[in-house]
Amino acid sequence: MVSVVILRLGHRPQRDQRVTTHVGLTARALGAEGMYLAGKDQSVVASISDVVSRWGGAFFVTDGVSWRRCINSWKDSGGRVVHLTMYGEPLPVMEETIRRLDRVLLVVGAEKVPGDLFGIADYNVAVTSQPHSEIASLAVFLDRIFQGEEFSREFPGGTIRVVPSRAGKIAEET
Amino acid sequence: MVSVVILRLGHRPQRDQRVTTHVGLTARALGAEGMYLAGKDQSVVASISDVVSRWGGAFFVTDGVSWRRCINSWKDSGGRVVHLTMYGEPLPVMEETIRRLDRVLLVVGAEKVPGDLFGIADYNVAVTSQPHSEIASLAVFLDRIFQGEEFSREFPGGTIRVVPSRAGKIAEET
Repeated sequence: MVSVVILRLGHRPQRDQRVTTHVGLTARALGAEGMYLAGKDQSVVASISDVVSRWGGAFFVTDGVSWRRCINSWKDSGGRVVHLTMYGEPLPVMEETIRRLDRVLLVVGAEKVPGDLFGIADYNVAVTSQPHSEIASLAVFLDRIFQGEEFSREFPGGTIRVVPSRAGKIAEET
Repeated sequence: MVSVVILRLGHRPQRDQRVTTHVGLTARALGAEGMYLAGKDQSVVASISDVVSRWGGAFFVTDGVSWRRCINSWKDSGGRVVHLTMYGEPLPVMEETIRRLDRVLLVVGAEKVPGDLFGIADYNVAVTSQPHSEIASLAVFLDRIFQGEEFSREFPGGTIRVVPSRAGKIAEET
């Protein structure tokens, strides 16, 4: 199965803290391996690491990366780069191709991304051509690429776990 | 086909502005009819209405509703209430049932929701039992309930439109 790592671009400290934290937590919950953050923000790293330590799994977060260097070394090691953008080709057309890849660096931008990214990426992929949310695009992308496998994923090593229920709020802590 | 309207709960003005705007834009792009916002926030209404007027379609946003009254009148008129929560039953188990409904009020909470909501909702549905993002849960829910139909949806009346492309950034304005 393809493995996916996120590269979060265009993060502005303070202003984007919550949205970038949502990007990281969504990536973790829906099956990605980790997130590189272009820019420094230790509070985002701390929030996500805190969830990982309590809820389990091996998701990594690394801030302060240079996006160009990150993409170049990813490509040099044989991985492919997919850029999520409303200007790209529709996900339903692209998903079969992407599912067959080995390692994907998934670039998730904020409002503005550098123009040359469109040419640098191997694939530019759109979750509809309407303006909405990079968190939403990421979620639909991962759900489709992993074909729902994230729903049965285990997160070993956590101390808290939800027990799904019809009308209650049941969590087990160890 | 089932029609879906969002009820956004627990919105705090200022702090939740961006996240709630993402909720509204995601709802619009992925096929919901509109959003009721529990709480007053004209800037959220303005941001979403601005997208609707430029990008088309008939999505509505109404702020300042009482969530209890909204749910009660929805139920009185024969609609069903689905609450998105990490404590609920897995979406893959529930989606067939929900797809067969006629009108769904989809309750999207922030961090804390009133405890009795779990009993008031007809269905409590989880997009994984891991903590992540209500925007991500909403996106996966709509993509699955509408089975990808949102990708071919038209938004009549807009003045701007993206032309999907392999490596460019093409928008047409009229």
